[in-house]
Amino acid sequence: MKIALAQLNYHIGNIDNNVSKIISKINEAKKQKADLVVFSELAVCGYPPHDFLEFDDFIDKCQEGINIIAKECDKIAAIVGSPSVNQNPNGKVLFNSAFFLSDSKITSIHNKGLLPTYDVFDEYRYFEPAQSFECINYKDRKIALTICEDIWDDYAYHFYKNEYKKMYSCCPMAELSKQSPDLMINISGSPFSYNHTEARLKILKRKTEQYNLPIIYVNQTGANTDLIFDGGSLFMNSDGEITEELKYFEEDFKIIETETAKTKISVQEHPKTGGNKIQRIHDALVLGIKDYFKKSGFSKAILGLSGGIDSAVTAALAAEALGGKNIKGVLLPSVYSSEHSVKDAMDLVKNLDCDHDIISIGSAFDAFLKSLEPSFKDLPSNVTEENIQARARGVLLMALSNKFGYILLNTSNKSELAVGYGTLYGDMCGGLGVLGDVYKTEVFELARYINRAKEIIPENTIIKPPSAELRPDQKDSDSLPDYEILDKILFEYIDNRQGPEELKKSFDSSLVNKIMKLVNTNEYKRYQTPPILRVSDKAFGPGRKMPIVAKYF
Amino acid sequence: MKIALAQLNYHIGNIDNNVSKIISKINEAKKQKADLVVFSELAVCGYPPHDFLEFDDFIDKCQEGINIIAKECDKIAAIVGSPSVNQNPNGKVLFNSAFFLSDSKITSIHNKGLLPTYDVFDEYRYFEPAQSFECINYKDRKIALTICEDIWDDYAYHFYKNEYKKMYSCCPMAELSKQSPDLMINISGSPFSYNHTEARLKILKRKTEQYNLPIIYVNQTGANTDLIFDGGSLFMNSDGEITEELKYFEEDFKIIETETAKTKISVQEHPKTGGNKIQRIHDALVLGIKDYFKKSGFSKAILGLSGGIDSAVTAALAAEALGGKNIKGVLLPSVYSSEHSVKDAMDLVKNLDCDHDIISIGSAFDAFLKSLEPSFKDLPSNVTEENIQARARGVLLMALSNKFGYILLNTSNKSELAVGYGTLYGDMCGGLGVLGDVYKTEVFELARYINRAKEIIPENTIIKPPSAELRPDQKDSDSLPDYEILDKILFEYIDNRQGPEELKKSFDSSLVNKIMKLVNTNEYKRYQTPPILRVSDKAFGPGRKMPIVAKYF
Repeated sequence: MKIALAQLNYHIGNIDNNVSKIISKINEAKKQKADLVVFSELAVCGYPPHDFLEFDDFIDKCQEGINIIAKECDKIAAIVGSPSVNQNPNGKVLFNSAFFLSDSKITSIHNKGLLPTYDVFDEYRYFEPAQSFECINYKDRKIALTICEDIWDDYAYHFYKNEYKKMYSCCPMAELSKQSPDLMINISGSPFSYNHTEARLKILKRKTEQYNLPIIYVNQTGANTDLIFDGGSLFMNSDGEITEELKYFEEDFKIIETETAKTKISVQEHPKTGGNKIQRIHDALVLGIKDYFKKSGFSKAILGLSGGIDSAVTAALAAEALGGKNIKGVLLPSVYSSEHSVKDAMDLVKNLDCDHDIISIGSAFDAFLKSLEPSFKDLPSNVTEENIQARARGVLLMALSNKFGYILLNTSNKSELAVGYGTLYGDMCGGLGVLGDVYKTEVFELARYINRAKEIIPENTIIKPPSAELRPDQKDSDSLPDYEILDKILFEYIDNRQGPEELKKSFDSSLVNKIMKLVNTNEYKRYQTPPILRVSDKAFGPGRKMPIVAKYF
Repeated sequence: MKIALAQLNYHIGNIDNNVSKIISKINEAKKQKADLVVFSELAVCGYPPHDFLEFDDFIDKCQEGINIIAKECDKIAAIVGSPSVNQNPNGKVLFNSAFFLSDSKITSIHNKGLLPTYDVFDEYRYFEPAQSFECINYKDRKIALTICEDIWDDYAYHFYKNEYKKMYSCCPMAELSKQSPDLMINISGSPFSYNHTEARLKILKRKTEQYNLPIIYVNQTGANTDLIFDGGSLFMNSDGEITEELKYFEEDFKIIETETAKTKISVQEHPKTGGNKIQRIHDALVLGIKDYFKKSGFSKAILGLSGGIDSAVTAALAAEALGGKNIKGVLLPSVYSSEHSVKDAMDLVKNLDCDHDIISIGSAFDAFLKSLEPSFKDLPSNVTEENIQARARGVLLMALSNKFGYILLNTSNKSELAVGYGTLYGDMCGGLGVLGDVYKTEVFELARYINRAKEIIPENTIIKPPSAELRPDQKDSDSLPDYEILDKILFEYIDNRQGPEELKKSFDSSLVNKIMKLVNTNEYKRYQTPPILRVSDKAFGPGRKMPIVAKYF
């Protein structure tokens, strides 16, 4: 059987556009005499559609979309993800469904059984889980079709006290396998994280071995606000060998000749698993920036260039995503800016060949201080004055953003967001947080990776000690432990959800207390950060829900 | 049987404090010879604990808390809400449980069966739903104990095309009723919305009629960031009559003599349902402000006073919550501020007897314009310059907040947040959004309510046409339709999830399109608003999840 894998970039809610894309790939598959073409999860509406699913006419538009697509499936069949209405009297209004379209009509609807509700996922909010599962009979083949999480039944688990507990007791593939299928197909909307690729390959391999069947896996690509989808669709034979793999981080389309589905196919090319960790993060962030702009209808980015590493790496990633000519770097020096800061920033501007402005914050800062004199009287200068500088920068950047239609990029990294080492409405401004899920130590690695062929990030930016330059001779290390140790503790607390009791087994107790306190008392700041491109399994944003007015240690 | 209802205000994660509170009420109940004392849902850890539940040592602390409480239950029994560990090999790690404590030990654990996953609720994220339900046998009585949503089985539904679908097919009370109980007890953590009280009474009445049993309902009070809990615990006899009711919006404790539980008890006092809509919203907001400050360890609030109604109402509510002496109102006039604005703001300051500052934004505004001149050149003045003024105010307010330890209150109302009529990092700054779930027309009603005994909000503030005063003679009505009509459309779109197709049946089509566009393109701004006190069934914040980079109509 000739099966086309269509790995596309969908725009949430832009149903007309998604439907056109799908139809154009159906036509391409028809031209190449494919029997079946497979699209990803919720392709018609884009993933994740969130509360759009609560609107009747949004659902109607999805259904219309499916009907239009079905009409194109005359000499071909298609599998397309879209919500469908639950016809049972009880339960949620919708199913998360895969439509099997053939003979110009909807031939069958297959609903997702396992609905993820952890991290960024909240599918139980909208969908009823399927209780029964039916194979597709098509051209003398029997296809076991599942949707994303459906095949993660024995891999998705929760930890408590280092013992794991499987999240799901239902196993859709076990049900489907009773019907003796020839082939598995899984359609996904599986967001990228830097270690997700291996997990995915592992689970696919396990399924092929468990059922002695080959699997076709179709994922989407592109980014939708914070979530980035890396594609990597593939065909894996029943020995768990990848025999065909689509591109990572871009649209792709490939026709696979399954022959008789149970016959092993020799490995035609070496499987690419999306590069190493830092390369993957790099590629993901570039795609994340690109799609945020494109799908919002913007083309130009602005950001403050301090001469430091965060703004330099953000600018370099943005230049790669949007082109250097579409980046405006703004140097906003103060009396506390060192000479090398301006030079380092200007070196970066040259390397990126981007636009720049230099605007001193001195006069705005002075004006604020003067206006505040009657209130502040003789009180000593403290973090307040540091914040005023950061906020004066924020006002200037936003003014340029508003006047010229740039989107302001936020450069805060995950380490400083974690401990609240940043000024709300100051350097925490922006439409999109580029590095908010990248720890400071990883930002350095990213800089080295960006410089792999030639110097883009100025060497001095990489080697000098990090500083906010908001008071004379300030260094990050004045208030924070070394990033090497800080990031380790933060990773265990945030990414691995190790509480203070566990942390104190490995780290200095007073240091743990200090960092816990910083992280927990700064929830209020993080609540107001821009959306953050998610590249790990636990990013700040909707995937990490912590109470604000609370006490924990 | 003598049953004590303990309606308390818990602090999330402050387990030591919550446990102490619970124990002190157990002792009070013992002194009064009660047989049983009942606390609310997840009382030990506070509700909602969110991702704290993913930390092993948080769970351990909850379990320790329960053990400590159990020891106090020697001559009394207690029902206390707390998470418990799921001992089954599969499923989520936790149950949302009610512990029955007697004879100084945990006698039985009763788990929640219906887990809400709509609006602000995401209990499936953490909890496994109970599949079996057992009554409590205690002192010759049989008690059917349920947790919050458990009794909402035939009231919680989703709409599609005006047909409703029950969310749940399981009914915990139906299972429990098979065991012939004498009494129902429901422990809740049920957040306030202005029309929730009636819904609650309706469902309680329905349950008493359905099972011909009386019910004891124990809810918590207090606010945890955005969610406000109104209390209103009660005893309802088997005829659906309220015979005892605890206070609204404050802690309360009452002992109820159930006699033989099936005997009707005559109504001892007239049921209070928490006043009318505006009064309830008023009381909820005052409690929301009070607890946000108290539970964060702050006592003083700052806000900008424009002379307009939003800041006046916010200041009046804050003064009621924290005392006038703890409020600093800051007048931040510009050249576009009308004379009456300053007078109206000063009248308010007098009425509230609060502290105030007057700081002109002129020199900061001029400094910004001058610094931006080389970039802006001769470009005409537009919304950019308006935003600079709003942001200069934001910087000044935050500077005072930082220097003196005030929390800045945000005054944006629901109407302007909906259409994006506000400046990000300007008037959208603040630690807590007081009016973000109150439409502009409701803000006027609140002002009238606040003035019910004497003039607190100056009359001129109420009667003058709303204006942002960011350019000469500006009025809200220059860019927006009248609030009367705007709020109607927004309510249907946001609160009732009517899409454009439905809206166009009742409202002008081009007006609907204009408002849809404003609402949808301003998701990026609302993403960065402070937490908003929730008083309706659909507030901006975590209960309304809309994609940012998306297209919808």
